[in-house]
Amino acid sequence: MSQKPGPDSFLTHFNARGEAHMVAITDKPVSDRRARAEGSIRMHRSTLERLRQSTVGKGDVLAVARIAAIQAAKKTADLIPLAHPLALTAVEVEFVDQDEPPQLLCRADLRCSGQTGVEMEALTAVSVALLTVYDMCKAIDRGMEITAVRLLEKSGGRSGHWRREA
Amino acid sequence: MSQKPGPDSFLTHFNARGEAHMVAITDKPVSDRRARAEGSIRMHRSTLERLRQSTVGKGDVLAVARIAAIQAAKKTADLIPLAHPLALTAVEVEFVDQDEPPQLLCRADLRCSGQTGVEMEALTAVSVALLTVYDMCKAIDRGMEITAVRLLEKSGGRSGHWRREA
Amino acid sequence: MSQKPGPDSFLTHFNARGEAHMVAITDKPVSDRRARAEGSIRMHRSTLERLRQSTVGKGDVLAVARIAAIQAAKKTADLIPLAHPLALTAVEVEFVDQDEPPQLLCRADLRCSGQTGVEMEALTAVSVALLTVYDMCKAIDRGMEITAVRLLEKSGGRSGHWRREA
Amino acid sequence: MSQKPGPDSFLTHFNARGEAHMVAITDKPVSDRRARAEGSIRMHRSTLERLRQSTVGKGDVLAVARIAAIQAAKKTADLIPLAHPLALTAVEVEFVDQDEPPQLLCRADLRCSGQTGVEMEALTAVSVALLTVYDMCKAIDRGMEITAVRLLEKSGGRSGHWRREA
Amino acid sequence: MSQKPGPDSFLTHFNARGEAHMVAITDKPVSDRRARAEGSIRMHRSTLERLRQSTVGKGDVLAVARIAAIQAAKKTADLIPLAHPLALTAVEVEFVDQDEPPQLLCRADLRCSGQTGVEMEALTAVSVALLTVYDMCKAIDRGMEITAVRLLEKSGGRSGHWRREA
Amino acid sequence: MSQKPGPDSFLTHFNARGEAHMVAITDKPVSDRRARAEGSIRMHRSTLERLRQSTVGKGDVLAVARIAAIQAAKKTADLIPLAHPLALTAVEVEFVDQDEPPQLLCRADLRCSGQTGVEMEALTAVSVALLTVYDMCKAIDRGMEITAVRLLEKSGGRSGHWRREA
Repeated sequence: MSQKPGPDSFLTHFNARGEAHMVAITDKPVSDRRARAEGSIRMHRSTLERLRQSTVGKGDVLAVARIAAIQAAKKTADLIPLAHPLALTAVEVEFVDQDEPPQLLCRADLRCSGQTGVEMEALTAVSVALLTVYDMCKAIDRGMEITAVRLLEKSGGRSGHWRREA
Repeated sequence: MSQKPGPDSFLTHFNARGEAHMVAITDKPVSDRRARAEGSIRMHRSTLERLRQSTVGKGDVLAVARIAAIQAAKKTADLIPLAHPLALTAVEVEFVDQDEPPQLLCRADLRCSGQTGVEMEALTAVSVALLTVYDMCKAIDRGMEITAVRLLEKSGGRSGHWRREA
Repeated sequence: MSQKPGPDSFLTHFNARGEAHMVAITDKPVSDRRARAEGSIRMHRSTLERLRQSTVGKGDVLAVARIAAIQAAKKTADLIPLAHPLALTAVEVEFVDQDEPPQLLCRADLRCSGQTGVEMEALTAVSVALLTVYDMCKAIDRGMEITAVRLLEKSGGRSGHWRREA
Repeated sequence: MSQKPGPDSFLTHFNARGEAHMVAITDKPVSDRRARAEGSIRMHRSTLERLRQSTVGKGDVLAVARIAAIQAAKKTADLIPLAHPLALTAVEVEFVDQDEPPQLLCRADLRCSGQTGVEMEALTAVSVALLTVYDMCKAIDRGMEITAVRLLEKSGGRSGHWRREA
Repeated sequence: MSQKPGPDSFLTHFNARGEAHMVAITDKPVSDRRARAEGSIRMHRSTLERLRQSTVGKGDVLAVARIAAIQAAKKTADLIPLAHPLALTAVEVEFVDQDEPPQLLCRADLRCSGQTGVEMEALTAVSVALLTVYDMCKAIDRGMEITAVRLLEKSGGRSGHWRREA
Repeated sequence: MSQKPGPDSFLTHFNARGEAHMVAITDKPVSDRRARAEGSIRMHRSTLERLRQSTVGKGDVLAVARIAAIQAAKKTADLIPLAHPLALTAVEVEFVDQDEPPQLLCRADLRCSGQTGVEMEALTAVSVALLTVYDMCKAIDRGMEITAVRLLEKSGGRSGHWRREA
């Protein structure tokens, strides 16, 4: 009942028989992990204007989306079948509104101390933040589109530091 | 304690005081609802080749992602703060691999009979499917990017039928 | 395997053998249900001042607590062992700050269309809102106290309308 | 994107392409559903004696297992990937201790009004009840064995009444 | 993307921009943590009498409430948006019935070994225990009131030992 | 408020007053834990034949059940009331089809590094895998029966190594 993928198993999430498993991290050392991810939601210019109004006055869409992102990060192992449960030690979520094209950018920065990385948690936080923005604005702009959800940087663990090329 | 947004409340997810609420659908009739959404994950050509191998032989990434999508659809009201709980009556998830640019497309088609639509469930299913693909392939291609997550079509309810323009 | 509590079973959540059960609501008609509940959190006068600052400027504690309340309402059947699952159709949460004694009052107003009432959902929403306020202010005031969590009014169902006496 | 399994698809949980889906129950009528299931846990005679003591005096193992069963029934759609979410309207759980062989029998009786049956909920309730008994007694009897978890009877829905032959 | 609240950010759950975040505990040492909390539910004298009967004979309300409390403690990070996930290592819940005024007192005593305290877990356990008592007795006493939910004592961590003054 | 069971408390999951608690593991050392469990589902010979077809061609029932098992293992502390939360570091699930009698055997092999064992996680994974198989095949064989769910082996912790006798 080996938990090491064999030489002809190309993806670590499958064992030598090609069956999905939660890959063994039992023997990996605990280290500080960090991941940053981002994503955007494209919208009509008028929707972006309304979002801008919302953040200065009543009805802060982004405050709701930020909470959704933090809570989703904590649920990652429940959403992603083969993800390992881990205990996050820090989550930051920020939004930047951009004009050309009109869109809202979300960035998440997460940390934990553990045997595996927090990339999935960061990408899940961003995705759910953007889905929440969609939910809150869909009555006025059903055509919004979530785009460019991607890892920016990760550090910690055996594979070390990785940074997306500009 | 009115639950109708007033004239200066531009987004239905906020009440007249600008506070987030679960908008009242109490008086809306039950009707058949359907939503279709899609999204893609861009990857290296070599990653796409490996995915193609995986679906024909051992280690079916897409079978795992499909299950993740169906389960995520059921968790939508837990992920999206102001979403109403609803009981899905059908979920279909399909994947299409595409060459130019190399990417995997996911489409979800959901139904329920209820007082509110299933758009968020469809978009959540697609997002989690693509996140799961990312998770399973990230060891070989950390730069993958989720893109074009969007609603294709919805029907049912007061706002009727909507279809994305080609 | 009778599901009706016998004459010597004084609480409906136990069957005739004195064993806990989810009481049968199978034959009850669907009706519109509504419940309003409230509760307070007492704090130092200086903590209340800081909360007031937070709601006008940066760092809106109550916006976070409101989202927590709405999400908790949806989780009620998961928290309260013998509660029936039900689909909420509206949730409103409001906060009022009060001076004598210094405290923050939370009120929740919930609706559903179902075979059982939403009292537990309303009380759960209020409790979790106040716990969230505690969490966010505990670094400056560990002695805060949650008090007077109670039902204000309920309507719908066989037992009809009930209102707390002033 | 047909949701009907084709003629060469032998299991309803897969579509014509052989892909898992949540099978469409959209057009099925709502009817009263009921399912009864049972299962046993075999144990050392001395463990059974201790369980019997526990239910008369302090430390009621079965009271804990009954609550676990009711809560698990509510989580069925979260545990079983292709199960439809449904709103239970009654749950009864009972235990019977038996001597030859020494074992504890658990029976669950569940109801809902919906478009699909509650068989999985009944079987899940029984399984989690027995797992909870295992958990609470494992320090004294690690060799216990869960056995004969099975449906006893179901009614409601297109497939009508079914009863296990004695 | 600093995770340290600046000098004009008065609450640690917000960053320097006034945005909610999961505050960084990454660099805090692991230590043994303990928190004790309590709360009460006031009720009619006759309800208290029934509760007393229930604990000696059939239908033990408090056994159900105790399980609800333990399970809720484990869900704290899912309920309280900015709470860190942590792994509890001990939970004790006790109830004391009191005559003047007639009420039921609940106390919870929790431990973990971690980078942050278990105060929220203890308060959540108490709140859900009392909500469960409300649920089980509400058919006979809708006017019950949850009161005096508060921290009694905490130890461990940088802020050291804290005890409520009598 | 002692957390040690007294001499007349026969089961560790109850305190000296006979009340359920999450037993204190606070002072136990962290060690590598492993547990292997198994269970079977008996079925008609024709159902087994269909399952065999499904795993070679379209519609892989076991791929779905495997994912359900891994996800259920992560939910164990949410399902089993007095179980401690723990962070799994490896999960393997395998299936073996057997002819006499016709049945499908499931084995799970789990690891974690923690203060308590993973036996419940292993048994929960097996149970949910078999329930998922039941769900997917129930339309053709409602009489299937889950049997012989049991621990095979455990290691780590104070009680050391345990292996089921053949």
